[in-house]
Amino acid sequence: MEKIRVELGERSYDITIGNKILSRLEREAGRTLLVTDSTVKKLYAREIASALGTEHVFSFPAGESSKRPETSLDICRTAARLNFDRKCRFAAAGGGVTGDLTGFAAAIYMRGIEFIQIPTTLLAAVDSSVGGKTGADIPEGKNLIGAFHQPSAVVIDTAFLATLPPAELKNGLAEIVKTAVILDGQLFEQLERDPESLFQKPDFEKTYPQIIRRCCELKGMIVSEDECEKGRRAILNYGHTFGHAVELLSDYTLPHGQAVAAGMAAAGELAVMLGVWSKECVRRQKALLNMLELPVKIPGKYNTCDLVAAMRRDKKNLNGRTRVVLCSDIGCAQLPVEADEKDLTEAWERIR
Amino acid sequence: MEKIRVELGERSYDITIGNKILSRLEREAGRTLLVTDSTVKKLYAREIASALGTEHVFSFPAGESSKRPETSLDICRTAARLNFDRKCRFAAAGGGVTGDLTGFAAAIYMRGIEFIQIPTTLLAAVDSSVGGKTGADIPEGKNLIGAFHQPSAVVIDTAFLATLPPAELKNGLAEIVKTAVILDGQLFEQLERDPESLFQKPDFEKTYPQIIRRCCELKGMIVSEDECEKGRRAILNYGHTFGHAVELLSDYTLPHGQAVAAGMAAAGELAVMLGVWSKECVRRQKALLNMLELPVKIPGKYNTCDLVAAMRRDKKNLNGRTRVVLCSDIGCAQLPVEADEKDLTEAWERIR
Repeated sequence: MEKIRVELGERSYDITIGNKILSRLEREAGRTLLVTDSTVKKLYAREIASALGTEHVFSFPAGESSKRPETSLDICRTAARLNFDRKCRFAAAGGGVTGDLTGFAAAIYMRGIEFIQIPTTLLAAVDSSVGGKTGADIPEGKNLIGAFHQPSAVVIDTAFLATLPPAELKNGLAEIVKTAVILDGQLFEQLERDPESLFQKPDFEKTYPQIIRRCCELKGMIVSEDECEKGRRAILNYGHTFGHAVELLSDYTLPHGQAVAAGMAAAGELAVMLGVWSKECVRRQKALLNMLELPVKIPGKYNTCDLVAAMRRDKKNLNGRTRVVLCSDIGCAQLPVEADEKDLTEAWERIR
Repeated sequence: MEKIRVELGERSYDITIGNKILSRLEREAGRTLLVTDSTVKKLYAREIASALGTEHVFSFPAGESSKRPETSLDICRTAARLNFDRKCRFAAAGGGVTGDLTGFAAAIYMRGIEFIQIPTTLLAAVDSSVGGKTGADIPEGKNLIGAFHQPSAVVIDTAFLATLPPAELKNGLAEIVKTAVILDGQLFEQLERDPESLFQKPDFEKTYPQIIRRCCELKGMIVSEDECEKGRRAILNYGHTFGHAVELLSDYTLPHGQAVAAGMAAAGELAVMLGVWSKECVRRQKALLNMLELPVKIPGKYNTCDLVAAMRRDKKNLNGRTRVVLCSDIGCAQLPVEADEKDLTEAWERIR
């Protein structure tokens, strides 16, 4: 069991990582409402509720279609009926949707209460559970509703990964590759050396605690510097401006990891075109994504014009101009730059 | 036209106060969605939209029944359909409901955008437009959903007060008395000297800018010290723990100012019973409330047990204990203290 501290101005919180650690946690004072989706509820709700010492469980139907502000309001209404006061807390056990909805509920219940993240997917462990971004979708767009609200603790038990379907595992791997490409050349080399171990269940408890720890550490540092994404935190969007466009055109049927992988491939091509990244870097990024069975071509038959138009709608853009993150080396991202439509078109064409 | 600066850690914002100042404001860059209720829309929407240089107006039916999170979500959805990005802003023109709903929408749209408060009621001018508390009601309780989100500017034009019904004016006066009792003995004396001027429309532009300025200055100082109500900010709840109980039992048909006035009367009695306030202070508070035609007895036929039980449900309580703010002088409030039910019962009985 290892701990990382994330410092945020005057506050801080711990991320605890290990295999089969949940039952060994110290129980905190105060009442807890455990939030899960229907899938995690079946597999783990009893075990997690018992570890947290609570009998209050709220669950919602698994899937992206639950990621609406109304679900967060339902969490709050449940808490209100249980007479939860400002010292009570929510605990999110699940993937990104559960974490986002529960975090958002914690951000708005009585103007903000504490919440704990207990990610059960690899993607949530390395990405959404750290950083304090919470939110929900409205018919007009993804994540348009939300708040920055940091967890009071994150507990990552790699034992949960054993029940994860391969497609879910790959969603997490895409974010791990992204973290390595933008921030840590050594982590990238480690992934290159032994990609098979990332898929072998018997290796999980050896492989993942260390990789997840490193990803959380790196993300924690970026978030500490720039909690509300005014500056450098934007580099975490590497591959995402391109990726979101494919996700949008697929009507969000494409898994996030596949979209991000293709997005990184496109960002890599653009970086080479603009002379900031070497061909060797692009080749290594592509080879690693390939070994992890992640796409390096546009996953689906989408028109390039539509992809470029979809990028224009990204909420990180300002004044209608598309901004993308590019790297100058493996392990080194630059701040977002404005990209013109001709170059974006060419980048997409290169991975067609 | 006068300006007060409210400092909040690294951020700050200005409150601009004066008579007929709206048309003289400098227009800021960036797009604005003006939010009003149906009443203010009829009276002032065109004038305010023109002063803000926007043509985008969202309005909702006037009244407390609109104060639901769904209304804030509608504001966000309207902004999304207008392709508002993170640099756009909302402007709330109206009373407390409009400010609370618009501020909450600004807190959750794209994880937080700027908003401007343009209070058109006296209550909003002296109270809700400063402080950054935003929120909405759910069937389980008032203001159980919300966020701390500070405005980027507050513009108080006392010209709006001319169209205010007397009952609305008195809602604001109750908060002004509260501010004086807890923080400013001189302001209290000023109110005692010439209460009539507070009701004479020809006097409004002489009387109110100065009183509103002082109330905003005082509230601004308290909020600067304690933005998220961890400590001293709680003194602003003077009269409110008692007052909320009457409001709740009246099913929120009782105007807020009447509830707060009766609440201050009860808090005054409790303070005398506990030996912290002199009888002379209670007498002066009662006399001033009387002169302002505000109640100093329980307004309605409510059972004392029910009132005490309703106080127990206040969201400022912790661990099920009722906490109330008492004063030790006119102009000097103490931090909240736990009160036992016997004393609360006696305090209510004394103003029956």
